[in-house]
Amino acid sequence: MTNWTATLANLVAHSSPNDEAIASAKKGLLDYLASSLTAGQTETGTLLIRWFDEEGGNADIPLIGMHKNASARQAALYNGYLGHALDLDDVHTDVRGHPSTVILPALLSVAATGSFSGRRFLEAYAIGVEVMARLGLTIGAQHYTRGWHNTATLGGIAAACACAYLQRFSAEKIELAIGIAATQSSGMRNQFGTEVKPLHAGLAAEQGYVASKLTGLGLIGSKRTLDGENGFLSLYGDGTDNADALTSDWGDSWKISKPGLWFKLYSFCSAAFHAADACHELLSQDTFILEDIQKIEVIYPPGGDAALIHTHPQTGDEGRFSVEYIVALFLTNRTATLSDFNHETIPASIRQVMNKVTRQYDATIKPSPHAVPKGRFTIVRVHLENGNILESRVDAPLGSTDKPLSMDQLEQKLDDSCSEEQAVQIKQAVNGLDKAATLSELIEAVR
Amino acid sequence: MTNWTATLANLVAHSSPNDEAIASAKKGLLDYLASSLTAGQTETGTLLIRWFDEEGGNADIPLIGMHKNASARQAALYNGYLGHALDLDDVHTDVRGHPSTVILPALLSVAATGSFSGRRFLEAYAIGVEVMARLGLTIGAQHYTRGWHNTATLGGIAAACACAYLQRFSAEKIELAIGIAATQSSGMRNQFGTEVKPLHAGLAAEQGYVASKLTGLGLIGSKRTLDGENGFLSLYGDGTDNADALTSDWGDSWKISKPGLWFKLYSFCSAAFHAADACHELLSQDTFILEDIQKIEVIYPPGGDAALIHTHPQTGDEGRFSVEYIVALFLTNRTATLSDFNHETIPASIRQVMNKVTRQYDATIKPSPHAVPKGRFTIVRVHLENGNILESRVDAPLGSTDKPLSMDQLEQKLDDSCSEEQAVQIKQAVNGLDKAATLSELIEAVR
Repeated sequence: MTNWTATLANLVAHSSPNDEAIASAKKGLLDYLASSLTAGQTETGTLLIRWFDEEGGNADIPLIGMHKNASARQAALYNGYLGHALDLDDVHTDVRGHPSTVILPALLSVAATGSFSGRRFLEAYAIGVEVMARLGLTIGAQHYTRGWHNTATLGGIAAACACAYLQRFSAEKIELAIGIAATQSSGMRNQFGTEVKPLHAGLAAEQGYVASKLTGLGLIGSKRTLDGENGFLSLYGDGTDNADALTSDWGDSWKISKPGLWFKLYSFCSAAFHAADACHELLSQDTFILEDIQKIEVIYPPGGDAALIHTHPQTGDEGRFSVEYIVALFLTNRTATLSDFNHETIPASIRQVMNKVTRQYDATIKPSPHAVPKGRFTIVRVHLENGNILESRVDAPLGSTDKPLSMDQLEQKLDDSCSEEQAVQIKQAVNGLDKAATLSELIEAVR
Repeated sequence: MTNWTATLANLVAHSSPNDEAIASAKKGLLDYLASSLTAGQTETGTLLIRWFDEEGGNADIPLIGMHKNASARQAALYNGYLGHALDLDDVHTDVRGHPSTVILPALLSVAATGSFSGRRFLEAYAIGVEVMARLGLTIGAQHYTRGWHNTATLGGIAAACACAYLQRFSAEKIELAIGIAATQSSGMRNQFGTEVKPLHAGLAAEQGYVASKLTGLGLIGSKRTLDGENGFLSLYGDGTDNADALTSDWGDSWKISKPGLWFKLYSFCSAAFHAADACHELLSQDTFILEDIQKIEVIYPPGGDAALIHTHPQTGDEGRFSVEYIVALFLTNRTATLSDFNHETIPASIRQVMNKVTRQYDATIKPSPHAVPKGRFTIVRVHLENGNILESRVDAPLGSTDKPLSMDQLEQKLDDSCSEEQAVQIKQAVNGLDKAATLSELIEAVR
């Protein structure tokens, strides 16, 4: 019987991501920083910093965009939270969640005080994404639908592997680090729509950091913690039936490039992106005014809207996870801005349109082979008062791996997130990172 | 439909444990300190302190027995680990785990820098045990058998409630704290027999502390996080079918007194205590020498040995969770000492007896109404070479709630754990704690 934990640990220890993976890692790093800097100074971020000040600690690691340092654990928590604060950070469909906002902060907390090359850092990041994507494929769809938040539950193990690789742990040590991370795995989807959702990313980053730290200090826990009837894969998922996905063809291509990261232009849940693009198309193909609309049907494959837990959101915050809100918002304003997703009550004008939206599920519609995520589509069907019906179907939204952002669009996201000077510094540091002997330029740029 | 999370939070906020509960809490505190001080300076404890020194922080909270302070989070982790390091700390059968080593460290991390009366501290502890025991009853036996470590998974929520009560949070805030603790709930039984098992207690203490801290600072997460189809009770357990147990008859009696805490005299898993007492009885009722033994059967009700995950332990550490080892140890040495549970390989003489032990399960044997835990028994049946069969059955071992330790035995455990001077100080501080205006004497005594 395969020992999946040991097999995975061994692959991590002896990995060597290729140049394509490194190029993708540079894009992912740029997007993570843009997402974090766009969030900037948040209410929860301020609350965390107040706590850190009270707690004290050796302030070695930068809090992104804050011109302030904190301890390694504090920084992992904060930077993990920040990247996910606006839900503007990358998605990986194999993960069913957000890899970079967990893996990169954990890595930064290890790397900022050590002596690591830029290439090693990027490799470690690619390996973290690899582990998280493969865990997502192995653990199965049920994990998410039962109520787990994959970003959190899979992120800690992935971050631990990334940190372990960065520090050149032996395969045996990596297996132990996986165990210490796995036994902390947590995060429930019933926190979606609150500030605890992005905090999950920070908690997972911290867990991954702590797992690698304690392993490095010599703590010995169990091996084989993914395996067995009480192991991680069985307790949290469908067992080891799909565990082939965890290790097979390792290194033939890298998940960070294929299918790759999905970079987001909007600050709401990616499961509503298709509908947003469909609204865009409807608005461009025909002219109608809001008052003409009798009702709006949004059609998903069964379960395709699982992440969109709010059908009657009260605030913009909750609306982040409501296709009703997103459709109403786009049909009304033609776009979404950050201020559409705060604690304030949704305005009556939007609510009026929202009330016309119903969700439907159609298992008979064939998904496109280009669908992102696999098997997904969204149809927005607008019934007008005059009897006319307008319809738009989107299989893969802009930014997803089938319609990736151009480098210009990605750099624009960064430019919009911070000062011109900082944007230039970051682009320079990230561009040259694979050739940099140390991380000092990057660390300096992200402050 | 009942909102279980809000109902529980409301009960916690308006609780007032009676004098019987306070008396039990004083015993529990004494036993927790004795268990921690017996552990003393451990390898893992030293490793954690090395980490804390590197991390830094405002050292406000004592690390028990170390004449050293650490930050609130560090101390919660360390003191939680320490109390459970030897598995010598109390058990609660409703919890299916160890309440005090999670709840008390979290409380200490809040209390040591605040201004709280001794009575309030003891009340908070009793309420923590109440929540943890009722969570244990509600979440069902499957939670444990599937692979969760109840001490860890239920402890964080209980500790958060205790800390919230201590600080007089409103019912609404307590509901939020429950959510932040629940979404961090983790800990797998496949770490049993390693140092990560006691670390789980520390991690849960830290989670409970953090949940109350973040709630106190104003973080707003979801409410009703125990409820619903994706809520804690469904995701981790059998759902809300038994949720009555969470809140019904609250305050009629207190779980810390009825059934009460089970105080341990030996440093191994309580599921092997019955067998140890049975061996004692066999040795006293008859004279036989080890060489006379042909085979030994240990008979449990089905599933009664779930915690004893090692049938072929290699080290004393693993033997802590092996009835084969415990039976061999007691038949050979008539007792167990701390040195029987370290990293060293089990000696050949013990191994020889171990190899004669087999486990059996008998669903037809009727459990005693006095059994602790409910439905449990253990029969040790020794077959001698001459054909004779000796048998002893134990339904409730010494120290368990049906055969509680006397106050003398409990104080002896403390006396054995530290210097005479410290033991006197601790006894004095704990005895007078319910009348103490502050916790300063207690804090001074535990250093």
